Amino acid sequence: MTVDLNSDLGEGFGAYRMGDDAAMLDVVTSANIACGFHAGDPAIMRRTCGLAVERGVRIGAHVGHRDLAGFGRRAIAVSPDEVRDETLYQIGSLDAFARAAGDRVRYVKPHGALYHQAAADPALADALVAALREFDADLVLLGPAGTEMERAARAAGTAFVGEGFADRAYTPEGLLASRGLPGGVLDADAAVAQALSIAREGKAVTVDGGTVAVSAASICVHGDSPAAVEMARRIRSMLDESGLFVRSFT
Amino acid sequence: MTVDLNSDLGEGFGAYRMGDDAAMLDVVTSANIACGFHAGDPAIMRRTCGLAVERGVRIGAHVGHRDLAGFGRRAIAVSPDEVRDETLYQIGSLDAFARAAGDRVRYVKPHGALYHQAAADPALADALVAALREFDADLVLLGPAGTEMERAARAAGTAFVGEGFADRAYTPEGLLASRGLPGGVLDADAAVAQALSIAREGKAVTVDGGTVAVSAASICVHGDSPAAVEMARRIRSMLDESGLFVRSFT
Amino acid sequence: MTVDLNSDLGEGFGAYRMGDDAAMLDVVTSANIACGFHAGDPAIMRRTCGLAVERGVRIGAHVGHRDLAGFGRRAIAVSPDEVRDETLYQIGSLDAFARAAGDRVRYVKPHGALYHQAAADPALADALVAALREFDADLVLLGPAGTEMERAARAAGTAFVGEGFADRAYTPEGLLASRGLPGGVLDADAAVAQALSIAREGKAVTVDGGTVAVSAASICVHGDSPAAVEMARRIRSMLDESGLFVRSFT
Amino acid sequence: MTVDLNSDLGEGFGAYRMGDDAAMLDVVTSANIACGFHAGDPAIMRRTCGLAVERGVRIGAHVGHRDLAGFGRRAIAVSPDEVRDETLYQIGSLDAFARAAGDRVRYVKPHGALYHQAAADPALADALVAALREFDADLVLLGPAGTEMERAARAAGTAFVGEGFADRAYTPEGLLASRGLPGGVLDADAAVAQALSIAREGKAVTVDGGTVAVSAASICVHGDSPAAVEMARRIRSMLDESGLFVRSFT
Repeated sequence: MTVDLNSDLGEGFGAYRMGDDAAMLDVVTSANIACGFHAGDPAIMRRTCGLAVERGVRIGAHVGHRDLAGFGRRAIAVSPDEVRDETLYQIGSLDAFARAAGDRVRYVKPHGALYHQAAADPALADALVAALREFDADLVLLGPAGTEMERAARAAGTAFVGEGFADRAYTPEGLLASRGLPGGVLDADAAVAQALSIAREGKAVTVDGGTVAVSAASICVHGDSPAAVEMARRIRSMLDESGLFVRSFT
Repeated sequence: MTVDLNSDLGEGFGAYRMGDDAAMLDVVTSANIACGFHAGDPAIMRRTCGLAVERGVRIGAHVGHRDLAGFGRRAIAVSPDEVRDETLYQIGSLDAFARAAGDRVRYVKPHGALYHQAAADPALADALVAALREFDADLVLLGPAGTEMERAARAAGTAFVGEGFADRAYTPEGLLASRGLPGGVLDADAAVAQALSIAREGKAVTVDGGTVAVSAASICVHGDSPAAVEMARRIRSMLDESGLFVRSFT
Repeated sequence: MTVDLNSDLGEGFGAYRMGDDAAMLDVVTSANIACGFHAGDPAIMRRTCGLAVERGVRIGAHVGHRDLAGFGRRAIAVSPDEVRDETLYQIGSLDAFARAAGDRVRYVKPHGALYHQAAADPALADALVAALREFDADLVLLGPAGTEMERAARAAGTAFVGEGFADRAYTPEGLLASRGLPGGVLDADAAVAQALSIAREGKAVTVDGGTVAVSAASICVHGDSPAAVEMARRIRSMLDESGLFVRSFT
Repeated sequence: MTVDLNSDLGEGFGAYRMGDDAAMLDVVTSANIACGFHAGDPAIMRRTCGLAVERGVRIGAHVGHRDLAGFGRRAIAVSPDEVRDETLYQIGSLDAFARAAGDRVRYVKPHGALYHQAAADPALADALVAALREFDADLVLLGPAGTEMERAARAAGTAFVGEGFADRAYTPEGLLASRGLPGGVLDADAAVAQALSIAREGKAVTVDGGTVAVSAASICVHGDSPAAVEMARRIRSMLDESGLFVRSFT
């Protein structure tokens, strides 16, 4: 059995730092690297791609809205054409650094508000997939299973990989529960247990205390605080010790 | 005898328009397309690349400083690393659209202040050329002959093409005279004559009334006003009628 | 009887031009000047304020989303706090130029998507009004009558002025009909007639061929094309000739 | 005897944090608050102004180049008009938040590259002072003594306050020595001693081991790391214990 660990990296900008990219690149097998729209800049993209390739971590384009002020977290009423064009732009820019480092962009994962909009809106999901295919028909789409993203990828013949979240509870319908709900965010012990449960059994906890099927060949972990990095390390160790083969899906 | 005509295109941004790209693409053989730093955005890059490929016009990355407010015309004290990283980013993003349109980026021309800084500063010129080579060793550098740009390209084994300006006078040393000098900007008739003179004899007029050798296999024309477009059309017609073969240098 | 004419001005950015501000400032009595978020920059703000004060045209802050790429026309999921803070920032910046020109900001009109979001969302409307009051309790809010904007202003004790559109049809409910609907945009003759009808009788045409009451002490005209400027001139002339006193509401 | 302590604050942007503003506001008497050009955003400006007013710390506009990617540290070839317009814009925007918090902008200090450019270039220094005077003739300019900034302020009748740096060595000519020089940056003990020496005797150490006169009624301290905050606290304590009255210059 194999499972992938992915994390959002390269999210600084100019003089600003965000997270401990080097530490997380020792933990994960897939690096979602920001491309300069919601975060990231050319210097950070180069450095993060270089660190990823050194460690054999796969590079994915973490494409987002052009909204540095909102860190890509605010829904914007973008058109499908805007999504297609901005996604293609971001993939192209990151691929240049991935190739300079000796590899290439292997997959795409939308960020923040674009992630949620493309999961729910069929036209935006189709536009996202169209950009992937324009760039390279072998690119994989990483996102939430059972959504418009998965449908759009499969309809176009693009490989899709579902992701689960270690530290988040789900609704009984299998969707991510809001962070604001009681029990919406899991503590470190519960997150480690959930990572294992998703990887081995395809099951996650729900906010009402039950479990729900979550289809995920990749688990997203965070590195935006020392505690988050420590949690990610524990998840990696537990997966390794449990006999799972932690490696990239590509 | 052959000569190339190049022009700066795709310089709008969002709701803003700049120049008549479609008209100019009927005139030139090489399109310097802005990449979103000093001008341009993903939608405009897609449209301009598509129009260029339809007409068989070669696509070049018109890379500039990250300075939309100054349209890339203000010198910025950038480091060589910044030039290398920002140039690689811009080439990668444009190449994605060039490939979606059925071609690829063939050459790079720096814009505005970066053009002048890379012409004069050896470290910046080397950084620019390093980015070209990282992306694709076959990329050509288009710029002013006899400068650090040419030196850096030749030292690295990168093909270099010199460009001349139809509507500008030169100094006796063969450099562009400032627009502000008396006689610095040529009228339409003189510009048409100079285009022919550069293409056939490698000679341009100087501000003091003489002529000077200008090594240019490409001539830059502008499309930022209806009068400029008309002048470009006249230059193209004159070159065609004079028996010169107007075609891209790549 | 009096009526105000307002227009969105100062919408260029850097090297980009938008509309003929000087021409429109000879037509209108209130200038909605962009503040650098969706359009505009410090140089343009200074120039537009100066031209307005020379002609006795009142200065209003045309506040918008921080979205130059989308020209402020894309809905963004902003929080009330963001609206309050970004509105206060924009008013403050424009007021500095208004004062340098010899007057001050007299009113505020939201732009584009923020206009529509604040018309419909009570919390955003309250946040907008809170920013006005923080800056100067005498500032007037200009916007669509009968909306959350009017309610929020009146609840807070802020003066509110409704605006109508000369060249747009309305729904039977008195809301602006979409531009995309058949008959949604009026031709020049109809727009001139509607301006007079709104000003004198408080009535506008509806998309289904009827009329509807529109409460508007100000009429918005556009200057983004030569035809638009000409239409605005005709509207001004018609209002003047009809014996209406065209002047600012402040 | 009195002395002021100033620090650069409010330098985050969106999701990005920079320094510990709350801690530094317990140490300093003057807060140089970023205005959204090189750093800062409306939410951070509101929060920082509020914290400053609560503590009785004076608010200054820390105006910089429009260069978030470079954090305002890169020289840009700006014109005097650009400096005047961008400075006025930034003062106006910050003053709106200062007034909402119950005070107003009391002084202006340029940031980063603009600081160095305005210190050396008479036309830029005059433009900076012109913006101060346009906004409020009582605004004070804070900057390096003996430079074009001081000259421009005095020539225009604007109050000028010189600042010194606790943790930096000076050249024998009384200018800041480069950080890159051996001995250019002082350790914590030396910085505390230098703060006292500047405040009491107007003397600082030089890179060649001597001392030089430094005219400074304000001392700049930094808060961009926990060690920097601790050094600032030690400097404040030492000044207090030495019988100096630490208070704002306004």
